[in-house]
Amino acid sequence: MTQPLTFDWLKAPLAQPNAEMHRLAQQRQEQLTKPPGSLGRLEEIAIRLAALQNTQHPGADRAHIAIFAADHGVAVEGVSAFPQSVTAEMIRNFARGGAAINVLARALGASLEIINLGTAHDMPALANVRDCHLGPGTANFVHEPAMTWEQLSQAMTIGYETIERVQKDGQQLFIGGEMGIGNTTSATALACLLLDEQPALLTGRGTGLDATGVTHKVAVIKRAVALHRPQINSPLDALRRVGGFEIAALTGAYIHGAQLGLPLLIDGFISSAAALAAEHIAPGCMQWFVFSHRSAESGHTAILKALNADPLIDLNMRLGEGSGAAVALSLLRMACALHNEMATFSEAQVAQKN
Amino acid sequence: MTQPLTFDWLKAPLAQPNAEMHRLAQQRQEQLTKPPGSLGRLEEIAIRLAALQNTQHPGADRAHIAIFAADHGVAVEGVSAFPQSVTAEMIRNFARGGAAINVLARALGASLEIINLGTAHDMPALANVRDCHLGPGTANFVHEPAMTWEQLSQAMTIGYETIERVQKDGQQLFIGGEMGIGNTTSATALACLLLDEQPALLTGRGTGLDATGVTHKVAVIKRAVALHRPQINSPLDALRRVGGFEIAALTGAYIHGAQLGLPLLIDGFISSAAALAAEHIAPGCMQWFVFSHRSAESGHTAILKALNADPLIDLNMRLGEGSGAAVALSLLRMACALHNEMATFSEAQVAQKN
Repeated sequence: MTQPLTFDWLKAPLAQPNAEMHRLAQQRQEQLTKPPGSLGRLEEIAIRLAALQNTQHPGADRAHIAIFAADHGVAVEGVSAFPQSVTAEMIRNFARGGAAINVLARALGASLEIINLGTAHDMPALANVRDCHLGPGTANFVHEPAMTWEQLSQAMTIGYETIERVQKDGQQLFIGGEMGIGNTTSATALACLLLDEQPALLTGRGTGLDATGVTHKVAVIKRAVALHRPQINSPLDALRRVGGFEIAALTGAYIHGAQLGLPLLIDGFISSAAALAAEHIAPGCMQWFVFSHRSAESGHTAILKALNADPLIDLNMRLGEGSGAAVALSLLRMACALHNEMATFSEAQVAQKN
Repeated sequence: MTQPLTFDWLKAPLAQPNAEMHRLAQQRQEQLTKPPGSLGRLEEIAIRLAALQNTQHPGADRAHIAIFAADHGVAVEGVSAFPQSVTAEMIRNFARGGAAINVLARALGASLEIINLGTAHDMPALANVRDCHLGPGTANFVHEPAMTWEQLSQAMTIGYETIERVQKDGQQLFIGGEMGIGNTTSATALACLLLDEQPALLTGRGTGLDATGVTHKVAVIKRAVALHRPQINSPLDALRRVGGFEIAALTGAYIHGAQLGLPLLIDGFISSAAALAAEHIAPGCMQWFVFSHRSAESGHTAILKALNADPLIDLNMRLGEGSGAAVALSLLRMACALHNEMATFSEAQVAQKN
């Protein structure tokens, strides 16, 4: 099996943050009526967004949230605290507006779209859900690759197309989220392969496994890693073998976002595994990542370390759905408002430091 | 010098959070469509606010921010990186809407009032500034008590009256902030006296001292602590001897907030020193404190530890003005929205944990 030509877009050059806007933003922060540095990471984030958005007036008011949902063949191994039916049930919950990310998107006035890449349980067409069915979930990667090359290409293209729409809509920022019973198992296996780490070090409780459940999950991931590691010839192949449809879509979205120069607010463990895959596939992507929160899922720290990332908040969240990124969005907005609207020392006739 | 009778209000009983609302909120969180506990500290905060606000529908939409500003006699010792004129200049900046807290209050739609308790430099009456002048700043506490008992009583009463207005306006939450060149020196001395700690352990860079400046500041605080420690007969006396007008006003506000049962979102180092004084003066107050952020000012951690507090965010901020609390307010609002608006498992027909 060779890779089809449709992966060619992955090789397109990445956009570059604007160094001059970075310098100007830094200069402005020094002139605002506050002790230099006293807004801490809010200064940092405004300066970064100015460089990423190529503007002296960074902003995060227009943000788009896309939730990619899919089922995982590996769920039959009993790796989740919840039954597989929950993936489809949660898609319906998203469609009706009752999930956490719906509440957050409404509170933030952010646009939200739900993209179904394939569930094990049949689903009727739903208003508010974009149907991109690639099959009844991935194959069980304990026995075989999770995806065919064709499916991988399709899933990543769905991410690509999402970013195209986001860009066309004039959004200032993209948040990707996910839902899929079994997807911490997939993300953990992927991180183990990309970071060459041991499953026991990266495996966490997911939606709420007990200690016995975690031990079993580690064993399942070990089997998968042992099967695939010897055969993997590229990061793309790792993603195909143990990833999920939603993880591949996120990876595609992150790579294309970096190509178009769109700031990408990264959520928790699953999203960070996709971000890690994106960086391995298209090195340099991570310049466009803004890490939102530190997940309570234990493997997150290793991925963050590999990406040299220090998320803005640590609220012990572990829900996924882009929820941590959505919560952090409000901080980005305040960082931008402070940057754009505060008076300078000379405007306000306030004396500077001795 | 004995305490005047006007401190009697400090002995009024404190309100008690509602345990039944706490239980109901906890129960509801277990039923929302997410793995139990997966919203981490956002669940915690919604449950706490339900108990504090005595409601099944906690909220933080209606929040009031009061900034207490005043000068400090100890500033003549050269303990700040900024000249003393900046206190008055920043009050003018607040009045014109150019400071960080103005931008944040606008972004949050929170009401904001500025209260001037006394500056070293003459100031004309300003629209948008409540004039409560108690003198041209406190006395230099290296030589004598910062305040007379009369001034302490007046400053604390200004905090009391602020809370009365907040309560009357039907606000759901109070944020106190402060401005005053030299006030980290005052707050550090106060924390040293209340916690019986060494100045070298609690003294930080304030608005941006260099290492030499910090060494000098430690020496100044040591002299003050050595002068006052042997004579202090109560926490109230410690506040009088080394506090500031704005710190005393915050302390009064926190105590009266706890008496009326108003959730109090505590900002950074100075506000936490006032919160510590409040807890020492009226034990039990801290039930009403919600700690917003961990300040970069080095003494903050010791105060937080003494109050058993784990703030929501840590963004390396050290501005004061209530700015950290204002930033955290957006998280409280999202926590409440999630609590109130998410669908339950039965409403959404989503299966629960295996």
